Amino acid sequence: MQLGMIGLGRMGANMVRRLMRDGHECVVFDVNPAAVKELAGEGAIGATSMEDFVSKLTKPRAAWMMVPAAVVEETLAQVAPLMEKGDMIVDGGNSYYRDDMDRAKRLEPTGVHYVDVGTSGGVWGLERGFCQMIGGPDEAVKHLDGVFASLAPKIESAPRTPGRDKVGGTAEHGYLHCGPSGAGHFVKMVHNGVEYGVMAAYAEGLNILRSANIGTKKQEVDAETTPLRDPEYYQFDLNIPDVAEVWRRGSVIGSWLLDLAAEALLEDPHLDNYEGRVSDSGEGRWTIKAAIDEGVPAHVLSSALYERFSSRGNADFADKVMSAMRYEFGGHLEKKP
Amino acid sequence: MQLGMIGLGRMGANMVRRLMRDGHECVVFDVNPAAVKELAGEGAIGATSMEDFVSKLTKPRAAWMMVPAAVVEETLAQVAPLMEKGDMIVDGGNSYYRDDMDRAKRLEPTGVHYVDVGTSGGVWGLERGFCQMIGGPDEAVKHLDGVFASLAPKIESAPRTPGRDKVGGTAEHGYLHCGPSGAGHFVKMVHNGVEYGVMAAYAEGLNILRSANIGTKKQEVDAETTPLRDPEYYQFDLNIPDVAEVWRRGSVIGSWLLDLAAEALLEDPHLDNYEGRVSDSGEGRWTIKAAIDEGVPAHVLSSALYERFSSRGNADFADKVMSAMRYEFGGHLEKKP
Amino acid sequence: MQLGMIGLGRMGANMVRRLMRDGHECVVFDVNPAAVKELAGEGAIGATSMEDFVSKLTKPRAAWMMVPAAVVEETLAQVAPLMEKGDMIVDGGNSYYRDDMDRAKRLEPTGVHYVDVGTSGGVWGLERGFCQMIGGPDEAVKHLDGVFASLAPKIESAPRTPGRDKVGGTAEHGYLHCGPSGAGHFVKMVHNGVEYGVMAAYAEGLNILRSANIGTKKQEVDAETTPLRDPEYYQFDLNIPDVAEVWRRGSVIGSWLLDLAAEALLEDPHLDNYEGRVSDSGEGRWTIKAAIDEGVPAHVLSSALYERFSSRGNADFADKVMSAMRYEFGGHLEKKP
Amino acid sequence: MQLGMIGLGRMGANMVRRLMRDGHECVVFDVNPAAVKELAGEGAIGATSMEDFVSKLTKPRAAWMMVPAAVVEETLAQVAPLMEKGDMIVDGGNSYYRDDMDRAKRLEPTGVHYVDVGTSGGVWGLERGFCQMIGGPDEAVKHLDGVFASLAPKIESAPRTPGRDKVGGTAEHGYLHCGPSGAGHFVKMVHNGVEYGVMAAYAEGLNILRSANIGTKKQEVDAETTPLRDPEYYQFDLNIPDVAEVWRRGSVIGSWLLDLAAEALLEDPHLDNYEGRVSDSGEGRWTIKAAIDEGVPAHVLSSALYERFSSRGNADFADKVMSAMRYEFGGHLEKKP
Repeated sequence: MQLGMIGLGRMGANMVRRLMRDGHECVVFDVNPAAVKELAGEGAIGATSMEDFVSKLTKPRAAWMMVPAAVVEETLAQVAPLMEKGDMIVDGGNSYYRDDMDRAKRLEPTGVHYVDVGTSGGVWGLERGFCQMIGGPDEAVKHLDGVFASLAPKIESAPRTPGRDKVGGTAEHGYLHCGPSGAGHFVKMVHNGVEYGVMAAYAEGLNILRSANIGTKKQEVDAETTPLRDPEYYQFDLNIPDVAEVWRRGSVIGSWLLDLAAEALLEDPHLDNYEGRVSDSGEGRWTIKAAIDEGVPAHVLSSALYERFSSRGNADFADKVMSAMRYEFGGHLEKKP
Repeated sequence: MQLGMIGLGRMGANMVRRLMRDGHECVVFDVNPAAVKELAGEGAIGATSMEDFVSKLTKPRAAWMMVPAAVVEETLAQVAPLMEKGDMIVDGGNSYYRDDMDRAKRLEPTGVHYVDVGTSGGVWGLERGFCQMIGGPDEAVKHLDGVFASLAPKIESAPRTPGRDKVGGTAEHGYLHCGPSGAGHFVKMVHNGVEYGVMAAYAEGLNILRSANIGTKKQEVDAETTPLRDPEYYQFDLNIPDVAEVWRRGSVIGSWLLDLAAEALLEDPHLDNYEGRVSDSGEGRWTIKAAIDEGVPAHVLSSALYERFSSRGNADFADKVMSAMRYEFGGHLEKKP
Repeated sequence: MQLGMIGLGRMGANMVRRLMRDGHECVVFDVNPAAVKELAGEGAIGATSMEDFVSKLTKPRAAWMMVPAAVVEETLAQVAPLMEKGDMIVDGGNSYYRDDMDRAKRLEPTGVHYVDVGTSGGVWGLERGFCQMIGGPDEAVKHLDGVFASLAPKIESAPRTPGRDKVGGTAEHGYLHCGPSGAGHFVKMVHNGVEYGVMAAYAEGLNILRSANIGTKKQEVDAETTPLRDPEYYQFDLNIPDVAEVWRRGSVIGSWLLDLAAEALLEDPHLDNYEGRVSDSGEGRWTIKAAIDEGVPAHVLSSALYERFSSRGNADFADKVMSAMRYEFGGHLEKKP
Repeated sequence: MQLGMIGLGRMGANMVRRLMRDGHECVVFDVNPAAVKELAGEGAIGATSMEDFVSKLTKPRAAWMMVPAAVVEETLAQVAPLMEKGDMIVDGGNSYYRDDMDRAKRLEPTGVHYVDVGTSGGVWGLERGFCQMIGGPDEAVKHLDGVFASLAPKIESAPRTPGRDKVGGTAEHGYLHCGPSGAGHFVKMVHNGVEYGVMAAYAEGLNILRSANIGTKKQEVDAETTPLRDPEYYQFDLNIPDVAEVWRRGSVIGSWLLDLAAEALLEDPHLDNYEGRVSDSGEGRWTIKAAIDEGVPAHVLSSALYERFSSRGNADFADKVMSAMRYEFGGHLEKKP
C-alpha cells in the first residue's frame, strides 16, 4: 500500500526504507530538501511542498508525521487542511497523549482520522523493526495494518509466549492497537518510564560493582567521617565490561539494554567519553504525572527520572541547603573533594 | 571430567543433568536418598553418605555444594575434613560473599581450594544454561573450566557484542572468573539487586497502565480529597497482557523478565492467583548494604527492595504514625477503604 | 476592619473567632444556617444568603472564602457577580495555584481583586495563629494587612532569627506576601509537600525503632529466606512514646510534628486506633508535578507521597507482578503471612 | 556530683561547662594540654595524663569519653585498665551501637560498667542543653542521673505533652534510659537517620520554590527535549529566606532545623558560601542497614542518605552508564551544560 511520510530524520527515513523493502510505496516530504532527495534516490516519491506531498497521495490518504513533538502542532496545521474526510494522519513521534486526544477531537468534524503511534526501537528500527503502540479509531487503524505490520519486527524476533497461539492478535508481531486516541502514546509514555527505571537499575548496579575496591583506598579519620568498618571485604577490582557481558547469557537480567551497555563498556570501559549529564525527553516526566493522578506509587520510576535531573546539577541548591543546616547546628564545614 | 554434587534440589539436580549431557561424570549426594536415587537412575553415581561421596571422587576431588545458604556452614563442616590438599569445594548457592572469604581463609591452611559461584537462570538453567559468576584461586578455577563451560549457556545464546572477538575471554560464553574468593558471589549479589530493580520498574509501569481508566470511576469530593482534575484523560481500558507482549519485540525494554511477565499475564491477566506478598532472599539486602559501605547512591535498587518489604505489611506502623499525626494536627480521620 | 467569611467549617469559624478577638468586624455566611447562627451568637454578623452577605459588607468589600477546593469554583460564581471594582475576594482554602491564576485573570476585567492565601496551622490555628502564604495584587494585599496580622501567630511565637531586625517584613509575624496571584498557594503547596516528607521521616524512623527487637523473633530457614545474621544486635524493646518525647527537648529533630507524634503515641502507644490508611489531599501531588516541570529532583517528597498511596493498597498490582515474575523464573511460591 | 571528661573538643568542653554551672565537679583530660588548661581556668580539675585523670576521680569513678568514634577504642584501652569494679565509663560520642554492646560485654568480667549515651544538640548544647539517649545497666545509669539531668534541657524547654504528668519519667526532661547496652546509640542512630530525612525534605522543598521562575527562562526545542508546557505557571521569583521565615510561625512544619535554615538563608540567600558537598557521618548509614536487617521500608531516609552521596559526585559512573546506553540505542549525544 501507500504511505506518505513527513519528517525524514533518522527515524522517519528508516521507516520509509523499511516500508519500501516490503514493497510499499512511500511519498516523502521534509523541510530539508536534501533529505527528500536522498530518499527519492532510494526509490521514494519526493515532494517539494506540503501541497505537493498531499497531492501525490492516493485516497484515502495516509500521512505519517515523524517530527519532534515540539513541531507536531505546526506540521498538523499545514497538512490537516489539505486532507479530506476519510483521510488519515498519523503522529508517530513522542507527543504527549493528551495532545493526541485534543487533536483527534479537533479533527473529528472534518472526518479526518487521527492515529497516534508510539514507536520504540531507536536508531535500530531499520534492522530490528519498530515496536508500535497504536491509538485511534478502528477504521483507520485497520486500514493501516499493512504499514504497521511491515514496520514491526517479525514474530520470529522473540520466542513465542506459551499459549499465545490460542489468543492471536498482533501484539506478538510487534504492534498493538491499544485503544482510542491517545492510547498509543499513553502506552509508549509508560514504556519510556519503565525504560528509565530499567536503565537506572543497571547503572546503579554497575556503579556498586565499580566501587567494590573501596577498601583499598585511604580512609579519612575525623570526628565526622565514619571509617569503613570492614575494608577487607571491599578489595575487588572487577572488570565491568566482562560482568556486563557475562550477564547477557542465561542470567535473569538479560535484556537488550544490557546488550547495549555491554557494547558501550567494551568500547570505553571507564566511559570516559561521557560526562554523565543524562537527558530526559518528556515521557518519563509524564509517566510520573500519570502515576500521581492515578494514585499509584512509582518509587523506582521517579527515582530514575530524578537521577537524570541530578546528573545535570539540578539538586545543587538542595544540597547547599543541607550543608548550610549542618553548619548551623554543628559548625560542620564542607569537606573539599 | 568428574564433578561431585552435594544437594540435589531443583538447581543441583538440573546442573547434574546438564553436566551429564555433556559427558561429565557426576557423583551425587543429598540428605534425601530419593533425590540421589532419581539421579542415579539417570546415570549419576549415587552416594549414601558424605564419606561415601568423597570416597567416590577422583583426585584432585571437586565437590560442588548446591544447598540453601543457611546450611552451607554445616555441609562444609562435613565435607571439608574429608578433603585433602589440592581438592576443591565449590559453593554454588546464594551465600553472602563475606562468608566465602572467611571460609576460604579458614580452609587455606589445609590446601583445599574454595570456589564461590553465583549462578543465575533459576529453574530454566537446564534448558537455557546457567550464567556463572566465579570467585576463587586461579588454579582451582582453571581446573573446573570444563564444568563451568558445560553448565554455561553457549555463546550462540545471544548475539555477539561487536568487538568481543578481539577481546576473547569466557564472559561471552556465560561464565566469568570475577576475582579472588568472594568475587563471584559479590557480582551475583549485585546481579540480584539489579534484578529487583528491573522487576520493580516493569511492575510499576504495568500498574500505571492498569489504572489508566481511573477517570471512569466515581471520585470523592470532600475537604481532604483532591478530585482528579482531568478524568477525561484517564479513560483507557488497556489490555495488560497484550501490552507486555508487544513490548517483547523491537522495543527498548525487551528482556527475559519481560518475557516471563508476558507469560504470567497471559495465563492470569489480573494475577488473581497472587496475593502480592513478595519475598526477598538476601542478595537484594546485601547489595544495598554494599552500596552504603561504598557511599554509592542506590535509589532504585533500594526502592525495589523496600517495595517488597511493604508488600508484606512491614510499613504498617509507619503508616499509622502518619495517620496519627494527621489526626493530631488536622482532626483528619482515616477514610474507610 | 471588616471581613466577610464564606464557609464556617472548623477552619473558617476559628478564623472568624480569632479576628473578632482582635476587634475586627466579621460578616459570616455558610450554606449551613446552624453554623451562621453559632458564630452570630459569638458576635459575628450573620447572613442568610450570598446576596445578604455581600450587602452587609462595607466597600471596598473583602470576602474570604474558606471552602473545600472542590467547591471554590461554584462559590466564586455566586459571590463574584455581586462584587464591584475595588472589592476583594480571598481564597483561603487549598486550591491549586493554577486555578488562582486563572480566576484572577478572569476577574481582572471586573476590577475585583483576587487574593490567594495558603494557610497552615490546622485545627490549632485559633490558639496558635495561622501561618499565611499570600499571593495577589499589592493593593489588595496591603488593604488586608490588618486581617492577616490578626490571623497570624505573633512574632513572639518563635525566637527571633538573628539579623531579622535589620530586614523587617511580615514574614517573622507569620504571614508573607509571596508574589502575584498564585504565589500564595504555590508556596503553601510546597509547604505541604515538605510536610509529607517530614512526617514520613519520623514515621520511618519510629518504625525502625519499633522493630529493634526483631532478633528475639523466630526466623525462618529455607532456600529463599536469608536468616538475620546478627539477631543478638536486635534485642531492644524500645518504649516508642518515650523516645518521641525525649527527642522533643534539645535534639536536632525537635518540631511541632514531633510534638504531635509524641502526644498521639502517649495516648495510644501501638496506634491501635489507626488502620494506617493515609490520605493525601492534593498539595503533595501538585508539589511533585511542579518538581517534575522544573526538572528538580524530589526523591524524599515523592517517596513520602507514594507511601501514602501504598498505605491504601495501590501498589497491590505491582506487587503481584513481581510475585508472578518470581514464580515464572524460579518457581517461587508466595509465602503466607 | 563528680564527673571525669575525656576529650575536650567543642562538645566535651561545653558539657563540662554546663555541668559546672550546675555545681558538679569536673575532672578533665585531653591529649591537647591547651584544652585542659582552658577548662581548668574555668574551674575544672585538669589532668596531665590518663593515670593522673583516673587518680583524681573519687570512687565509684565515672569517666565520660567524648571523642571521635574512630578513637574510642584506643581511648578505652587506656582508661579501662585503670578502672575498678563499680566504676563507670560512658561513651558519649557517635559510636556504632554494636561496638557498645561488644565493649560492654568485654568489660563485664572486670565489673566496670559501660554506658552508651547518644547526644543531640550540636554546638548549641551548652545553651539549649543536650538531649541524651542512654543505654546500659540500671545501676550505673541511676548513679549518673544527676549528670544526665544537668546536661539535659529543662522540662520547660518545650510545652508539656498532655497526659505526660500522669506518666512521669525522665523523657520529658530531655534524657531517657532506652534499654541495655547499645540501646542509647541505637536510638541516637535512628535519630540521625530521621534528621537526614527531615533535612532533605526541607532542602527539596526549597529547591522547588527556587525554580518556580523556570518559565521565565529560555527553553530548548529539539527532538529530545520536551518543552515546558505551561511556562506561564512558573513565573514566580520567590524570596526563599522570607518563605523559610514565615513557615517558622504557626505552620505545621515549624522545627528547629527550619529555624536554622531560616538563619542560614537570611545570612546568605543563595547559599553561595556552600558548594553543596554534604557529608554523612555514620549514623545515617547504620540506620538504613538496621532497616534492611529488620525488613522495614525506609524510602525517605535512604533517599536522604543517597542524596548526600550524590552531592559528592558518587553517582557519576551510574550517570555515565545511562548516557552511554542512550547513545547506543538512540544515538543521543549528551547536551552541554
